[in-house]
Amino acid sequence: MENMAHENPEVDDEVIVELLLKEITELVIDQGLLSGKALKEDRVTNFVHPEKLKKLVDLSLGDSPLSHGEIFELCKRAVEYSVRTNHPKFLNQLYHGADPVGLAGAWLSEALNTNLYTYEVAPFFMMVEHEVLAHLRNFIGWEDGDGIFTPGGSLANMYGMVLARFNKFPEVKTKGMGNIGELVAFTSQEGHYSILKAAHWIGLGTDNLVMVASDSSGRMIPAELENKIVKALEQKKVPYFVNATAGTTVFGAFDPLEPLAFICKKYDLWLHVDAAWGGGALVSQKHRSLMQGIEMVDSVAWNLHKMLGAPLQCSAFLTKHTNVFHRCNSASATYLFQTDKYYDMRYDTGDKSIQCGRKVDAFKLWLMWKARGNRGLEKMVDNAFECSKYFTRQLSLRPGFRLVIAEPSCTNVCFWYIPPRWRNSPESPEWWGKLSKVAPAIKKRMVEKGSLMVSYQPLVHKNMVNFFRLALHCQPPPTHEDMDFVLNEIERLGRDLDNIH
Amino acid sequence: MENMAHENPEVDDEVIVELLLKEITELVIDQGLLSGKALKEDRVTNFVHPEKLKKLVDLSLGDSPLSHGEIFELCKRAVEYSVRTNHPKFLNQLYHGADPVGLAGAWLSEALNTNLYTYEVAPFFMMVEHEVLAHLRNFIGWEDGDGIFTPGGSLANMYGMVLARFNKFPEVKTKGMGNIGELVAFTSQEGHYSILKAAHWIGLGTDNLVMVASDSSGRMIPAELENKIVKALEQKKVPYFVNATAGTTVFGAFDPLEPLAFICKKYDLWLHVDAAWGGGALVSQKHRSLMQGIEMVDSVAWNLHKMLGAPLQCSAFLTKHTNVFHRCNSASATYLFQTDKYYDMRYDTGDKSIQCGRKVDAFKLWLMWKARGNRGLEKMVDNAFECSKYFTRQLSLRPGFRLVIAEPSCTNVCFWYIPPRWRNSPESPEWWGKLSKVAPAIKKRMVEKGSLMVSYQPLVHKNMVNFFRLALHCQPPPTHEDMDFVLNEIERLGRDLDNIH
Repeated sequence: MENMAHENPEVDDEVIVELLLKEITELVIDQGLLSGKALKEDRVTNFVHPEKLKKLVDLSLGDSPLSHGEIFELCKRAVEYSVRTNHPKFLNQLYHGADPVGLAGAWLSEALNTNLYTYEVAPFFMMVEHEVLAHLRNFIGWEDGDGIFTPGGSLANMYGMVLARFNKFPEVKTKGMGNIGELVAFTSQEGHYSILKAAHWIGLGTDNLVMVASDSSGRMIPAELENKIVKALEQKKVPYFVNATAGTTVFGAFDPLEPLAFICKKYDLWLHVDAAWGGGALVSQKHRSLMQGIEMVDSVAWNLHKMLGAPLQCSAFLTKHTNVFHRCNSASATYLFQTDKYYDMRYDTGDKSIQCGRKVDAFKLWLMWKARGNRGLEKMVDNAFECSKYFTRQLSLRPGFRLVIAEPSCTNVCFWYIPPRWRNSPESPEWWGKLSKVAPAIKKRMVEKGSLMVSYQPLVHKNMVNFFRLALHCQPPPTHEDMDFVLNEIERLGRDLDNIH
Repeated sequence: MENMAHENPEVDDEVIVELLLKEITELVIDQGLLSGKALKEDRVTNFVHPEKLKKLVDLSLGDSPLSHGEIFELCKRAVEYSVRTNHPKFLNQLYHGADPVGLAGAWLSEALNTNLYTYEVAPFFMMVEHEVLAHLRNFIGWEDGDGIFTPGGSLANMYGMVLARFNKFPEVKTKGMGNIGELVAFTSQEGHYSILKAAHWIGLGTDNLVMVASDSSGRMIPAELENKIVKALEQKKVPYFVNATAGTTVFGAFDPLEPLAFICKKYDLWLHVDAAWGGGALVSQKHRSLMQGIEMVDSVAWNLHKMLGAPLQCSAFLTKHTNVFHRCNSASATYLFQTDKYYDMRYDTGDKSIQCGRKVDAFKLWLMWKARGNRGLEKMVDNAFECSKYFTRQLSLRPGFRLVIAEPSCTNVCFWYIPPRWRNSPESPEWWGKLSKVAPAIKKRMVEKGSLMVSYQPLVHKNMVNFFRLALHCQPPPTHEDMDFVLNEIERLGRDLDNIH
């Protein structure tokens, strides 16, 4: 049988397939989808309700092929009804626009369609991953160690929980959790929910994830941790793992690593740091002190697609332990990891992974790091911190805005907006009840207008009603002008909400 | 502070960043990196040893930025020292070239840098994922159900193991594995190693993963499964999960789903099917009978980046159960999944995921499926099966080749090559010992020459020494000419190996 390339001429014709890629490139450029290239008139989002979207675009899949022209039309619809993460007014999440050099790296590795598990199938990218992991460990302060890129920070945290368990009880790999006592892990009230999900998945149970209280800034209180450890020991439970957070999701708080590390050493617990968000501060001479003591911990999760703006996903799991990671995860599948190969098989690292196939996320990061250098990234991080300080200052000067915590540590700023007529009213439970509806109402308006996206949430354990959380980052680099716009726009959208019920 | 875009003029200048993306597009096209567009003179791989690669390319990261020209040079080096998965002679793994329309979809979604967890941040892509999952469930034969895209089949299988456990023992989520008895899961000897890794991660322990014997074609033997279940029950253990495989990694065997489903029903076990590889057969009227009974199972893992050629990664986890998936995995983080939003929040599916951030893998698949239609994909799958039959037939006509199993079910073909002077020798243990060295020796030669890549492995539990495994797929569509080349080339590379020790 001949090559089938001509059976579906509409899309498989050589010229047309190449044309489609060129058109996508033009579309990305013309539509201003590159970081910082959003057009002045662009909306952050062009919101329509789900059922309406279904009517606007034929999403159904069926028997017949579409033509090249129809495919390209669908691509344009995808852009039209997607959120512009590269827009300077998308300040809604901890990710944002993709670094354009990183994007070039992502496109190239997508085209090469490389799967990262052996040097044999991924020679260049395997060496790049080794190099990038070593460079990241340097920023932590480890000369040696191990690590891997994972699909997201949640899984990087789960790596930490599983590796810690294996390190203390290697028999868990074969015997399971049956005979190693009732394990207990610790995280702060502000810790990421992935630890909770992982506690379920790894068979620990969420009841055995002990929540440690945080102070008014959202930092884990070391004395509280020690109390909880002692209490667990008294109950004949087996404390084994502490998750500290460097840059909490909502407040951007940094847990005090040094005192936590001393406690973990005292009780022989593994200290993992979820630095998915705050890890970006490590590249800044000015801000890395937020993570003082990081070199003392056992493992770190660091999402380079968050503050630093690598394209999604780019999550490193790093550990200072050199001899335990491979033993923990290996299954030694002979169809992948043959032992009679013709090259130095120490570079075949895939067996450390819980995945079999794995994308080469390291490459896009490597390319953007090459293009910017440590210095370039440092400047961008410093700019994000500086803008968050500017925003905080401006906010405190305006009536009607109130900070949730007085001095944010990271680049997230949490705040309430209070409509004019309530500002001098007594702050009764009823007043707070009404205030809880303000952020959702403003959010609805900003999305419908498409001018801005900033997220909101309550914080039940701190007894706080819905407040906004602004999150700043490297891509596109935020400016003072953007910050002023956010404050002005929230005022514009919220000033008539006095009568909300 | 002004926008920082001008601080690093070499890479951030508007024109240059756009230029880089255009250059990447040209590079992909000119270098023949699109599926089926490899040039006649291209090598599948340009192998150099790891230490040499380090000398050929400066991989190190440091303080200073590189210029745009230097960045583009590095991209060219990445291509030069990467394996050409799109080459018709890359037949080494269960993945291969990326469907070019799927690649266009991947590029666009990379540029949009969308994270898939709520309709709010991913309106278009969220609807696309719902549509694609429903379409895939249709092929399984389920009108209803649930599912999610996961980063690879290993994690999709782990979803199955965790969901099955929660379904039987919902208290495991809070209490952990302490008080639900000694759980046992079952898989066949040929099952994928991800089940073993997952048994460790989820706290079951690999000793509690019972291996069920397979027949000579590599299919799980239903009576053996029942024996093992009964034995586990006699030992007061708690059988809960069976992993069947549709398209095993090495042989491409399809476990008999119907009898397995009856056994699972009898003993109230969850039946999961790892159809990561063989799932592709579902789109073919001619070959879907390989999975007879698939509609009776509880969950399925299906990697669309394997046989069907979607760009890496594209792995669906599907279940027919509608009410258990969300409850199993939800953590209800208020900063993401607010309950007071302005739209129909049933479309916010991120809380079902074990990840927090998640790529929009569904989109690239959706776009290529739109471009090909069910019929186009069916033809490509049928072509892959037809070529594997052609290869098997041709192989059996040539002296010196021997099939490992007489009639392969899927598109993988396993075989030995026997050098000329050994062909009439008695097949003593010594003879087999020597034969075990042939495949590695030929592999080394094919990689050094760069003409072909086909993988090899032993199969210890079947007492089989190193043999080749060819794996056929949709992208690029294999041809008879390619098949003849493989046989000729292995003969060329191996005919002088009579004296190997």
